Amino acid sequence: MNESTTREERFDHGLEVLRRVDGEAGQRVVDSLADISPELGHQIVAWGFGEIYDRPQLAPRDRQLVTLGMLTALGGCEAQLEVHVNAALNVGLGAEQIVEALLHSAGYCGFPRALNATFVAKKVFAERGLLPADQRESRP
Amino acid sequence: MNESTTREERFDHGLEVLRRVDGEAGQRVVDSLADISPELGHQIVAWGFGEIYDRPQLAPRDRQLVTLGMLTALGGCEAQLEVHVNAALNVGLGAEQIVEALLHSAGYCGFPRALNATFVAKKVFAERGLLPADQRESRP
Amino acid sequence: MNESTTREERFDHGLEVLRRVDGEAGQRVVDSLADISPELGHQIVAWGFGEIYDRPQLAPRDRQLVTLGMLTALGGCEAQLEVHVNAALNVGLGAEQIVEALLHSAGYCGFPRALNATFVAKKVFAERGLLPADQRESRP
Amino acid sequence: MNESTTREERFDHGLEVLRRVDGEAGQRVVDSLADISPELGHQIVAWGFGEIYDRPQLAPRDRQLVTLGMLTALGGCEAQLEVHVNAALNVGLGAEQIVEALLHSAGYCGFPRALNATFVAKKVFAERGLLPADQRESRP
Amino acid sequence: MNESTTREERFDHGLEVLRRVDGEAGQRVVDSLADISPELGHQIVAWGFGEIYDRPQLAPRDRQLVTLGMLTALGGCEAQLEVHVNAALNVGLGAEQIVEALLHSAGYCGFPRALNATFVAKKVFAERGLLPADQRESRP
Amino acid sequence: MNESTTREERFDHGLEVLRRVDGEAGQRVVDSLADISPELGHQIVAWGFGEIYDRPQLAPRDRQLVTLGMLTALGGCEAQLEVHVNAALNVGLGAEQIVEALLHSAGYCGFPRALNATFVAKKVFAERGLLPADQRESRP
Repeated sequence: MNESTTREERFDHGLEVLRRVDGEAGQRVVDSLADISPELGHQIVAWGFGEIYDRPQLAPRDRQLVTLGMLTALGGCEAQLEVHVNAALNVGLGAEQIVEALLHSAGYCGFPRALNATFVAKKVFAERGLLPADQRESRP
Repeated sequence: MNESTTREERFDHGLEVLRRVDGEAGQRVVDSLADISPELGHQIVAWGFGEIYDRPQLAPRDRQLVTLGMLTALGGCEAQLEVHVNAALNVGLGAEQIVEALLHSAGYCGFPRALNATFVAKKVFAERGLLPADQRESRP
Repeated sequence: MNESTTREERFDHGLEVLRRVDGEAGQRVVDSLADISPELGHQIVAWGFGEIYDRPQLAPRDRQLVTLGMLTALGGCEAQLEVHVNAALNVGLGAEQIVEALLHSAGYCGFPRALNATFVAKKVFAERGLLPADQRESRP
Repeated sequence: MNESTTREERFDHGLEVLRRVDGEAGQRVVDSLADISPELGHQIVAWGFGEIYDRPQLAPRDRQLVTLGMLTALGGCEAQLEVHVNAALNVGLGAEQIVEALLHSAGYCGFPRALNATFVAKKVFAERGLLPADQRESRP
Repeated sequence: MNESTTREERFDHGLEVLRRVDGEAGQRVVDSLADISPELGHQIVAWGFGEIYDRPQLAPRDRQLVTLGMLTALGGCEAQLEVHVNAALNVGLGAEQIVEALLHSAGYCGFPRALNATFVAKKVFAERGLLPADQRESRP
Repeated sequence: MNESTTREERFDHGLEVLRRVDGEAGQRVVDSLADISPELGHQIVAWGFGEIYDRPQLAPRDRQLVTLGMLTALGGCEAQLEVHVNAALNVGLGAEQIVEALLHSAGYCGFPRALNATFVAKKVFAERGLLPADQRESRP
């Protein structure tokens, strides 16, 4: 991205980053905006992914850890959390690390938010054949 | 509303304002409270609409802009947002303005909240034959 | 619970408190965590219920009042609210008190959160044959 | 309050309830609104206290438990929490019960919100000579 | 802004919009980021103001109504609310309309958030010689 | 920690973890709870740090990334964020990574939350002689 990059080039670059991170799920979100707010879709891709996500100052897996924390804390973002649990797996976080990040969240956001996020992870892991997620975990 | 207005008159006045703003959707919310919390239904109508909404210091369309911002920011209020996207259209905001308000929200609440609200708008616009909403919007 | 209580004993004690407060609904939440985050299930039971809930400094019914307030204010915790409306009834709060607590919440959290919580209560009360909840309530 | 109560009578009644619950602190909030939003002050008193707080379906101490839960969960409401920790003491909750309610909140809202609320309680208790609050509490 | 606009041009354009809307207060925020996160400052200006705020689909005053709603609902954004109450006055909203928007917010966010926002408005209005704000308002 | 660990041993172990992660700042929080809610202090240390933080499934630096995301998203947790920006530096995150995590948060929580968190980081970095934080960052 140099200084004379066009709007279209910025979008195309963002789309490349989006696909790398979120896979098809990100593309589906953008597609579903086409008839209601294509500009929102454009900005998520061109700005969110093309300008912010791709900066080298923080590794993709680290960005997903921050993102899992934020989406869990915000609440009511189950759809976005589903995309980002997938993304977290795509960029190299293990299932066990994701589960642990959500356990860790309980102390900061409380159990209800941690539970909601963990059930989203369960859904994603089930779809990707990753259950049971946590075999080595201690039991009561 | 003068000083000796009765509780019943206050309710009736609020119902009139509610119908003007929210149409049938508001009435349905009140009806669904009848067997669980009629007092909550009464207060939404008599106080929320009868006393607050009807004050002349802010135009109905301006109240809906504030309301769209609040409901988007709060999160988890998709049912109420649906009522108020309808209300926004009823009191004179255009589909394009509503979509733009939700795009604008991304910078203040983040993309997840903006997306959730935009998908509520998409549902309402689809029901009212207003899709595609945003024909003149730029594309990447 | 004395100083040498084991992890397993702490869990068993918590389970006893959980069953007393939440009934089967709490157990179902713990069961549903078994293949994704058994440690989260363990901590909710052993810590949340075994260590915190069971302390004598606040009566169970008082804890549920605080909890109803928190879950209503947080938003997006409808599943947990459902468990705790049941719990509130289990530990001695009446349907009318629960409905009133949620009406009271409107002034602090606004109507949308109060409505979401009230509709959760309606679902629970319907399942337990407690509707109409509020017969003596005033009407407009 | 009968059906022909005037706006002024509703305010006066609310003020009486406000003084009983919040003492002078509530009055100070209303006074501080006089030159910016007297209508907000009116509604807090006439509606919040006159219509909602005074209903017999939930005891004043129970309302404060719900309110402590909500203000803790909302976050950023330290000023209002200060008023309501005072109110909780005024209507019969003990210092130990308030502290316990805030400990209880940790499991639902996380430690940061519980800490913020507990430090507000510490300030109020210090002003009222109630520290140390929790002498019989266990220590590590 | 055409397709080959440079990063510097985008920033300069955003700065122009920022100054028009927020006046000096916006510039001060950007300046205070210079030694900690100049990129955050750049993006607020170049993206937030240059790309989003300046779109013609929603008038500047309407954007401020949405923004006042969001910042009030979010809570804990008093610093940003101060900038935007100023901005609201700068783009043509009257003091009375702003006060009314915050009164209106009480029904959606509850009184504590409405109070916090109203006291921010009081501070801004005092600095701009706009108090008392609400002379024609009814009194109890 | 084996099965017969006592309450005191659990606290001592947690204190060790707390000191490693948070340094003196964590200890100060616990101390400030001594006369108001020693049990809350105990649980933060014995449970939050002793049981959760010390689990090997997620590295300390990764926990801080999740935590920075959560505290930024929650809002109103500036005091806790200050402790955890320090903690993040203590466990191996660089100033540039922290700043980038907060820039990244803007897309999920919006600019106001990102700004509040960034100004907390600025305060911490100033105290630790880490300003300017971001020398290689691009400028408009």
